[in-house]
Parts: sequence; structure tokens; C-alpha cells
Amino acid sequence: MTSTKSLHLTEPMNPDAFTDAQQRIAAAYSPESLKSLGTDLVERLSQHMAELQQREHSVLNWNSPEENLPIARETLNSHAEHAKESLAERFQKLVDVAIRRGHNLHHPRYIGHQVPASIPIAGLFDAMGAITNQVMAIYEMGPWVTSVERALIERWGAEIGLTPGTFDGLVTHGGSLANLTALLTARNTVFPKSWQRGFTDGNASPVLVAHADSHYCVTRSAGMLGLGTENCLKAKLDPLRRIDPQALDEQLAQLRKDNRPILAVSAAACATPIGAFDQLNDIADVCRRHDVWMHVDAAHGGAVSMSKRHRHLISGLERSDSFICDAHKMMFVSALCAFVFYREKAYRYAAFQQDAPYLFDPSTPGMAEIDSGMSTVECTKRAAVYGLWGTWSLFGEQLFADLVDVTFEMTQILYRKLEAAEDFVPLHQPQANIQVFRYVPSASYGLNEAEVGELNRQIRWKLIESGKFYIVQTHLDGQAALRTTLMNPLTTEDDLNELLAEVRSSAATQLKEKE
Amino acid sequence: MTSTKSLHLTEPMNPDAFTDAQQRIAAAYSPESLKSLGTDLVERLSQHMAELQQREHSVLNWNSPEENLPIARETLNSHAEHAKESLAERFQKLVDVAIRRGHNLHHPRYIGHQVPASIPIAGLFDAMGAITNQVMAIYEMGPWVTSVERALIERWGAEIGLTPGTFDGLVTHGGSLANLTALLTARNTVFPKSWQRGFTDGNASPVLVAHADSHYCVTRSAGMLGLGTENCLKAKLDPLRRIDPQALDEQLAQLRKDNRPILAVSAAACATPIGAFDQLNDIADVCRRHDVWMHVDAAHGGAVSMSKRHRHLISGLERSDSFICDAHKMMFVSALCAFVFYREKAYRYAAFQQDAPYLFDPSTPGMAEIDSGMSTVECTKRAAVYGLWGTWSLFGEQLFADLVDVTFEMTQILYRKLEAAEDFVPLHQPQANIQVFRYVPSASYGLNEAEVGELNRQIRWKLIESGKFYIVQTHLDGQAALRTTLMNPLTTEDDLNELLAEVRSSAATQLKEKE
Repeated sequence: MTSTKSLHLTEPMNPDAFTDAQQRIAAAYSPESLKSLGTDLVERLSQHMAELQQREHSVLNWNSPEENLPIARETLNSHAEHAKESLAERFQKLVDVAIRRGHNLHHPRYIGHQVPASIPIAGLFDAMGAITNQVMAIYEMGPWVTSVERALIERWGAEIGLTPGTFDGLVTHGGSLANLTALLTARNTVFPKSWQRGFTDGNASPVLVAHADSHYCVTRSAGMLGLGTENCLKAKLDPLRRIDPQALDEQLAQLRKDNRPILAVSAAACATPIGAFDQLNDIADVCRRHDVWMHVDAAHGGAVSMSKRHRHLISGLERSDSFICDAHKMMFVSALCAFVFYREKAYRYAAFQQDAPYLFDPSTPGMAEIDSGMSTVECTKRAAVYGLWGTWSLFGEQLFADLVDVTFEMTQILYRKLEAAEDFVPLHQPQANIQVFRYVPSASYGLNEAEVGELNRQIRWKLIESGKFYIVQTHLDGQAALRTTLMNPLTTEDDLNELLAEVRSSAATQLKEKE
Repeated sequence: MTSTKSLHLTEPMNPDAFTDAQQRIAAAYSPESLKSLGTDLVERLSQHMAELQQREHSVLNWNSPEENLPIARETLNSHAEHAKESLAERFQKLVDVAIRRGHNLHHPRYIGHQVPASIPIAGLFDAMGAITNQVMAIYEMGPWVTSVERALIERWGAEIGLTPGTFDGLVTHGGSLANLTALLTARNTVFPKSWQRGFTDGNASPVLVAHADSHYCVTRSAGMLGLGTENCLKAKLDPLRRIDPQALDEQLAQLRKDNRPILAVSAAACATPIGAFDQLNDIADVCRRHDVWMHVDAAHGGAVSMSKRHRHLISGLERSDSFICDAHKMMFVSALCAFVFYREKAYRYAAFQQDAPYLFDPSTPGMAEIDSGMSTVECTKRAAVYGLWGTWSLFGEQLFADLVDVTFEMTQILYRKLEAAEDFVPLHQPQANIQVFRYVPSASYGLNEAEVGELNRQIRWKLIESGKFYIVQTHLDGQAALRTTLMNPLTTEDDLNELLAEVRSSAATQLKEKE
């Protein structure tokens, strides 16, 4: 029997100090305060949402870091400096500053990054998870959230076309982490010794072949996993910015000929810049021919599985070895809730090959099957699926189909407007809800390419500062351009007309200033 | 100018179908529904918290996966199957099932894993972030949450003893990801070519020297980063399960002599099994002597910086090159909110060395300084700091000191009770709020070591099933034992007395059954 080892215990606390501390803690844990502050919060947020839907307020409340940082630092002293105010007053001030200085993704003129104006009620389910602190790692820590997560993996995977009973998956905190986890599984499967021995004892460097427009996290994964970013090779694209299957076939053939080990091919559905969907069946054929792991980053596009109109875009996704889908993109739930799917159930435990005796109990191996920590980077994981679970259960799958259909349709409407306008050029036809375009003034202004690019950058910045719209900028084929993702399903055709009018008016002002 | 490329646009939607979809979406986005459902939710959770504080309900609502999974699958059909019910009725049913089948961390007899009974009001700030979907990656996507995160990094880092202006940090989704990110930074700094070229072209395998009781994520990091888990070497522990500085000195000297490259030493403050704090100043001396990167996993212990009584336990933490602290452990906020700190500001961008033109704008390099995505695995990141920010601002740092002081003190009270009891053996003196112990029946029962272990396992399982307490099990020096972490500051001495009584009573029943 181990005897107690020698160590100086801290002197016991003074009983009065102990009681005081307990009282302060009890006040912070008061159910009554939770109720009164929570009720205030819900009312405030509901009012705010209603105002945004009426297009009140700015889209982005732009303040520079130099303006926001001192105020943020100051809030941390609120307790001491506003000690005389009630808890409710201090709470309201904090909520107020966060709203007044935050980003209004729920304004219908927020049409920027691939982050949605989330379904507000989805956030209520997240609130339930946060307030009760439901977490998982092993099943018994979060029996319900673990069950809900499993049910969603089964259901969504089947919708996408995976064969029930044969596939598996996991949920993690974001698309970058999801891609990393899936590519780690690919690495450990293709190079079985790499987990234990590392990538240090090989000869020819293995490569990852990725869509040339892949999200930066794919190259980062190569850097993180010990492959090296320079061993992340670009797959050639066709004129529609999709992987060219013929070129991929040749690339893989050459790599095999050169004896370069191949970790995986990473395709996209859809790729970030213009929302181009790879032709997944063709890529699956090529990957199978060369016996290469096929991975697909379907962070944005996975949700089209819900739409009868658009699900053809991901035909073949079910043939890939691994793929990821972000529910916090086109399923319109709050960040972060990303899914990894494995076509073969057996891959689920390939990412990590360890045990933690106090967690994963070897005496109950059946239970480990369902312990989330066995397959995710996270040990403790929050109830990331609650927003999706609640929304799916409350509204059914039709709502997800609607969200895809409406935002995709509205993007085609925008495209047609841009095509019809003399002073706008859409840089591609949209497959998804992403549209890149430029404002191009009349030739009479005599602007060169660089000047047109600079004009577009200036236009964007003025829009942001004005708070009228939130769109982003990008470069496409070396051209600076404007980029919009219609991530708010409440954006109307009138909003889009107004966008074009604002861009024109801003351009006119700037061109005049230059004269 | 790029011309539009050829692609078949989807046929426009039928106008009626489009309008129907828009109407369903508008209903899901209704501010009125947000208000009414949200108000219901807050009332329900407040009531639930009050009941738990009265020790009503089970701690863990134990149901096997076989029981929970079919019900979880069924909820996903709620919309179709309960179409006649109101939205409010369906919402309440979903909240109800989640509460009835979830884990009650706010029950004062939840004293299990290192996951807290979180401050409920902290969850309200998370709710604000989730409902408004505040995210970050680049500053302009989340100007306020980015500012708040910076302010917290500055403030907490300074509290720990880092020199203002010279250090930096980041927030990420959990301690495992935090350790991975910090060790990636160490790898890229110590082996500058590994990011681009990979770990494939070296000769002698680099090693990571880690506390022998490190959390499993440290070894996993070695596996993920291409080092290989077998190159994660254990640092020898002293009898108190802390790294033995003398032995570490010898180990590093030997490694240097053998020309084995060293990625880092990973210490613990505190280590998971019994909550032992490494002697960080001694380890810092050793690491500097051998010019080795010092990393500390202070996921659990970092918060003692807030406590005058206990902050000596992390003296020297400020000398490490990198360390991590989980706010969702001893700062008692909801999961997940983990901090990585770098002693030198320059390390902040070492983890990743890439750009994404549509995100990190090279024309505004000053802004990239504050873009969170430059230093975190996550691209889109949720407002993970809102709970901590709100709690800190509302209640001040004293509350964090109180939470550490009270839970640590209560653990020493438990230790003394175990020491005083004839049939209990504490397996260590507690430095933190973790206590491992065994129930050891009178010698007259004649149980051997394995039988005592089995008895303890059975005791735990009966406690869990009964819903009376939630504690965990572990192995220490080959002995199966009970483990408790006092993560609920509302746990009282009476609860602890009751725990011992319940264990005794359960043991008596089981010993009787065996007779």
C-alpha cells in the first residue's frame, strides 16, 4: 500500500475569510440572477435582431484596434470602478458595449465572409449547453450530447450517400481542425509507422496533392503533420477553377513513377475563392486508379446534400475516404460545429492511437466505441452540436434546404444583375452563394489594371466604414476584386440593387476626387 | 480582363417555391420567437439550477448508449412527428430531454473530472456570442471580441508575471489544442526548416521530454507533429510525482552528448493524476543550462495566479518559453476557452507561416498583428472568451481567487478526513483540488490487492448509477483507486461526509454479497 508522502499542506484558511469567499461565490451562482440577467439579455437580443431586420444600425461597427483596445482593457476593471451599480446595471453595460462594437452578421446587408447570419434559435441551444456546461470526451461525461452527436453523424452521413453502418465520423471545432484531423488519419493510415516513429526516418518526401485554391488550412496541415508545406503540391485547375481530372491522373502517375509516396489528394466542394465544386466522381475514379486516399474539403458545400436542387454538386462525395462539412457555414448554426466523415468506420481510431487509463476505460471496450475523445483532437469538448441538433429537431431538414436554395438563388440573381450592368464584371458564374466581381469604370477614365484594382479596394473600404454593407476583397488571377458570400438568407433583391448603387456612387465620388 | 467562363446556371426557382422558402426562413429567424423561447429557457435553467443547489435530481443521469441513442435519433424527426404542436411546445420538449438526460455538473455532489460547475452567468455571455454569432479570424470580422481577447491575454499574462509589452498569446478551443499549438511553435522555432520541408529529411530523431504524468495530449502532439510518440521521452518524477530537476539535468546532458536534437521539455502545473505542481524555477534553470525550450501545461493550475494563498505554486511559470492555461477549468467558465502564452512576443507567428490573400491583407500589415487567425489553428473562431470576459468584468478577479481558495481548501478538508478514517487511504497530500484515495476494508476480510482494486471500481460504479455522486476512477502506481476533483465551489463539508458514508455503505453491501 502506498503511504502518504511528505508535503507541507497550506495552513488552513481563516474561517471568516473562507465564509466571505463562499458568500461571494454563492452570489455569482445565484439562480435568481441567472434568471433576471438572462431575461434582460434575451429581450435585448430580440430587440436588436428586430432592428437589424429593419436595416437599422451599421452592418460592421467599425472601430480601429486603437479605439477598441483601451475600452476592452477598461471593462475588465468594471467591478471595482462601478461597485455602486447593481449587477443588472453592470451586466447591461457589458452587453451594450459588446453589441455596439460587435459585428452585425444579422443585418441583411452583411454579405461578406463564409460565416452565416446564424439562426438565432440555434444560439439558444448553444446557450443551454454553455450555461449547464455540457461537455464530452468520454460518454459518461456527456451521455446526451454524445448521443445527439452520434445521431447527427449517422443521419447527415446517410443523407450525403454514405452507407449506414459502414461509415463513421466526429465533430470538432472548425473546418481547419477538421481537415487537420482527417489528413492526420490519412497520414497514419497510409504511413502506419508515422504516428509512433515520426516522419523523421523516411527517404523520399511524401506529398499531399491539393486543389490549387484550397483553403490555407490544407497547406498548414502539411506543415503541422511533419510533411512540410513545400510537399503540398497543387493540383492543376480547369478554366472553372475545378481540379482537372485528366491532369490529376497524369500528376499521380508521375508521382508513382518517381516513387514519391502520396499522402492524399485533397479536393474541394466548394473551393473558397469562387465557390467552385470539384467533379468528385471523376476525382474518385482517378484516386482509385492510383490507390490514393481521397479527401474532400466540403466545409462550405456539404450542406447542399439537403437541397434537391443542388445536391448534384456533391455527387461522388460519398466515394471519398474522408471529407469535412461545417454546420456553422451552410447549415446556418453558430460557430463552431464541423463534421469529419470517414467512409470506412475502421478509420475512426486511426488519428490517435493512445489510451488514458483514467479516461478510456479498457475494462469497458464497448463504451470506448462511443467516447468522443478517442477520435478528436479535443479532450474536453463542448456541446458543439447542440445548435444543429435543436434546429434540425425544431424545424426539420426542409429549413436547411431552404437556406441553401434561397441563398444560392439570390446569388444567381446578383450574377445576372452584374452581367447586365455595363460597369460591373462578374469574374465567374456562381455555383454556390459566392460571387466575385469588379467595378470597372468607363474606358473614358483611362484607368489601367492596377488603378482599377485600387479603385475596387477603396470602394470596399468606404462601404465598410460607412456601415452600409459588409463585403470582402480578394485577388483572382492577379486582379484585385470584390467578393461577396450571401450568408444572410434575409438579404433581398432590393439589398443587392442598393449594393450596386452604393458601389457606383462610391466609385463616382472617388473618380471625381482624382480628377 | 477575365471574361465570364462557361457554366450552366441552375434554372431559376419557381417563384412560389422561392416565396415559401423565404417564409419558412423568416419564421425561423423571428425575433419574437427568440424572445419567447429564450425567456422560457432562462426560466427553466434558473429553476433547474436552484433545484440542483438543493441537491435534488441525480448528479449524472446515467443511461447507456443503447438507451439514449434511439431517443436522440428520434428527436431529429420531431418536426414532422409533432407538426401539430406549437414551436414553444416542441422547444420545451427538446430542452427537457437534454436536461433530463444530461450531466448535472451544478449538483454540489458532482466532484469528478477537471471540468467545472461553471458560473451560470458566464454562460449568458457565451449565449450572447452564439446568438449574434460573433466570430474572429481577422480583426474586422470580430473587432470587439478580438479586442477583448487581447485585453485578457495582456491582463492574465501580466498577473502570471510576464513582462508587459514583451509577451504574447492566443486563445483556442481547449487544452489539447493549446498544447499542440505551443509545441508546434517550439518545433518550428527549434527546427526552422521543419515547417516547410517537413520532418522527413533529418537523421537523429528529435525528442520531446515530458513529465511522466503528462496529459495524453502531449504524447499525441508528438505523434501529430511528425516527431513520433516513441520520441516523447518521460522525465523522471520524484516521490511527489513532480519532475526531478536533478534527473532532468542528467537526462538533457545525456541527450546533448548523444547529439539527439531536443524539441522541448514539457512540465506540468499541475499534472493530471494527483495535481502535482512541478518546481518550475528549478526546471527553468535546467532548461536554460541546456538551451532547451521550456513548455508548461498549466491547463489546470494557471488560475492560481489569482490567489494570494496559492500563487507560489506556479512561481517560475513566467520563465517558460510557452505555457497554456484553461479558463474552462479553474476560472470556472464554460468550455472551451484555453490560453497559450509565449514569453517572447516574436514566437506568436512561428506556429504558421502562411498568408491567405483574401483574409490577411498584406496591404495592412499592422492589422495582421491583431488578426487571431495568424496564430491559431482555427480560422473562423467563436467568441470563446466572452464567458471569461463577462465574468471578470462583472465580478472582478476576487471571484477567481475565491474559487481557487475555496475548492483547494475543501480538498485539504477532504484529505484530513481520509487521513483520520481507518478504512480510507489518501494516496497523496493534495496541492490542488484533486484527491486520489482508496477504500480499504478491514484486514479481517482478507482481500488481496486486486480485490481491493475491484471493490473500489464497484463502489464508484454504484455511486454513479445511483446518481448520488459523480467521481472518477484511476490507477496510481498500479493500484485502482478513486479520484475526485472538487470542481464545484458549492460542495460543502457535509457533502464530503456524505461521500465517505456512501462509499462505506456501498462497500459494506458488496462485501456482504461476497460472503
